[in-house]
Amino acid sequence: MPNRPTDPPALATRLAGVTSSIVRDLLALTERPGIISFAGGLPAPELFDVEGTAESFATVLSTGARAALQYSPTEGNATLRAIVADRYTALGLPTRAENIVITTGSQQGLSLLAATLVDPGDAVLVERPSYLAALQALTLAGARLIEVPSNGDGVDLDALAELARRHSARLFYTVPTFHNPTGRTLDAHQRGRIAEIAQQVGFRVIADDPYHELRYSGESLAPMAAFCDSDHVVSTGSFSKILAPGLRLGFVRCDPTIKPGLVVAKQSADLHTSTLDQAAAAHYLATGRLSASLARARCEYGRRRDALLAGLESALPPGSRWTNPDGGMFVWAELPEGWDAAVLLPTAIAHQVAFVPGASFFASAPRANTMRLSFTTYDPETIAEGTRRLGLALAG
Amino acid sequence: MPNRPTDPPALATRLAGVTSSIVRDLLALTERPGIISFAGGLPAPELFDVEGTAESFATVLSTGARAALQYSPTEGNATLRAIVADRYTALGLPTRAENIVITTGSQQGLSLLAATLVDPGDAVLVERPSYLAALQALTLAGARLIEVPSNGDGVDLDALAELARRHSARLFYTVPTFHNPTGRTLDAHQRGRIAEIAQQVGFRVIADDPYHELRYSGESLAPMAAFCDSDHVVSTGSFSKILAPGLRLGFVRCDPTIKPGLVVAKQSADLHTSTLDQAAAAHYLATGRLSASLARARCEYGRRRDALLAGLESALPPGSRWTNPDGGMFVWAELPEGWDAAVLLPTAIAHQVAFVPGASFFASAPRANTMRLSFTTYDPETIAEGTRRLGLALAG
Repeated sequence: MPNRPTDPPALATRLAGVTSSIVRDLLALTERPGIISFAGGLPAPELFDVEGTAESFATVLSTGARAALQYSPTEGNATLRAIVADRYTALGLPTRAENIVITTGSQQGLSLLAATLVDPGDAVLVERPSYLAALQALTLAGARLIEVPSNGDGVDLDALAELARRHSARLFYTVPTFHNPTGRTLDAHQRGRIAEIAQQVGFRVIADDPYHELRYSGESLAPMAAFCDSDHVVSTGSFSKILAPGLRLGFVRCDPTIKPGLVVAKQSADLHTSTLDQAAAAHYLATGRLSASLARARCEYGRRRDALLAGLESALPPGSRWTNPDGGMFVWAELPEGWDAAVLLPTAIAHQVAFVPGASFFASAPRANTMRLSFTTYDPETIAEGTRRLGLALAG
Repeated sequence: MPNRPTDPPALATRLAGVTSSIVRDLLALTERPGIISFAGGLPAPELFDVEGTAESFATVLSTGARAALQYSPTEGNATLRAIVADRYTALGLPTRAENIVITTGSQQGLSLLAATLVDPGDAVLVERPSYLAALQALTLAGARLIEVPSNGDGVDLDALAELARRHSARLFYTVPTFHNPTGRTLDAHQRGRIAEIAQQVGFRVIADDPYHELRYSGESLAPMAAFCDSDHVVSTGSFSKILAPGLRLGFVRCDPTIKPGLVVAKQSADLHTSTLDQAAAAHYLATGRLSASLARARCEYGRRRDALLAGLESALPPGSRWTNPDGGMFVWAELPEGWDAAVLLPTAIAHQVAFVPGASFFASAPRANTMRLSFTTYDPETIAEGTRRLGLALAG
């Protein structure tokens, strides 16, 4: 009788239940014919610059294929790192290429920062609610998550300072611009105060900013790290929302204290990000096509946001509230107290419409009456039909 | 006066010194003009099937670009998983697509297995010497590494069983075929006995097998998992050595007990591997071009191995020994007792030739008189010149 190998650790097993159900079910939903799913967080594929992207891959593969198919440095493609640094500098945050590490999507940036900046048991502050996959990456690294009260305008700054002191927090994780899941943006005052508190109390901020270029209204803001004259704010970013998520290209902007550990962790994680995808992205960005592609996406996504906001007026029951984001991909809705979005989801699916129950985005004490709705996937007419169905489902 | 953020954990900091020096220095060496470096582990870029790869990318981007640029399932491209499963089945290890998870290089497979199968403090058995980046991934996961004595023929099986029992080992990590760094291959008897011991004692084996298709002499062997009628052997594999390392495409073959945790860890690590790179690889493999490309690589690499082995005869001092691998990329040399390869390296570099001092491949008590030499990067004539220089350096 062979001995069973000892079981995998409790942590992975526990998380296995959580995520596979949420993410796989939602992916399955978006693939089911007939359903209008506000659940996913997928950019619209019809807005990808397929022609430009294909041209860049063809150029790299016809002019420098051998290098583009070979192993490459862990930190990433030097040209791409310089372009990313220049883009930060243009946003008001002076940055050099040596402060940039290319990652396999910004999710890898979060995962590597969690692995290198968090020791098991460390307190990490997160917004309430916060991005599900970041909560997971931090939990896998052994973080003890502490929720900071937040509202439509941003983070409760007094609570942030108090909780950071009380728990000797190592990190505060935030999505400053067009937050996932709520859509809210931290204004300049909040950005400055958060950076100050981090300096005063002595913790780092991970400013996860994948959506900031998807602005449809309001004034652009400098990255949070620009409000900080020290190394207390680490930034992560992504090409997923502006070029193509399938390429898995993200980046971390970090200081020389953090970078060596981050590079070791990245080497251990996957040696480096796809050499070819990085080279093609660097070529694409150098062509200057991104501006036109982004302008087109901003225009179309803005119409889609407006369609969702208009549709929610009649879809959600009286007493509901929802956010009015200036950009990004998500609207966050609160149904009246006592409603449970998870209970309503099957009815919605029966009406051929879907959303994410908000409970998944809370590190503790989930608020059952919340939901996240993405507006990027469908054209305005389909969104209008989706909200009509949602109204029928919630009235049913 | 702002408070400094607390320092990153000791682990990452400690590893930072180790790896950046080794890997960056070696990469830098291979790029320095004039030097002949046996240090790298790079496949020969002139043997990449550039034309076929470019055609596959062009086809995917002209026929299915929107899907290929979009987010995709964490487990990987369904077609690619089926192809990988069929290749295992053809090797004598019946496998279904659902047992395959595509990873961002096989390095990610190791890293995810370490994260999901090792709790901090767990004993993990490794060969002596073993693959450097695997030692790192296991160490980052908190493993306590226990070395199993090994020799030119393979692992000391009695010691494996005894150490596994004594330390209640969770895992044994091995490279069964054309081992990195030694080049040795475990024969059928060793494979069978290791699988049996794992079953009897109750630990899992990670059989990391990226080189097995690079065989230049001798008979092909079934994967280690084929010698085991249970779930005790998990396999990792790679397209890096047969298609192109820059694409970062690897895979894990695992049982249903492990897979859910692995998929959660992968989702947290990078959501999924490049959709486009996976789709292009699946297309390329379906064209059937790989066989011809691999045949060409095997023929050329065999000549390069022979050139290195011939050159070492006169390059290494009397009393040296070295392995005679049937495939892969590496020869392992032992200089006479008392020699120190790390001390000799600067002299070698002054003679425009390089190698990796073997000490880096030991989890403890490094043997200073060892070195790893890669034979895949240069043509036979250049290898002959490299060994001539090596002889001068060692005689110097």
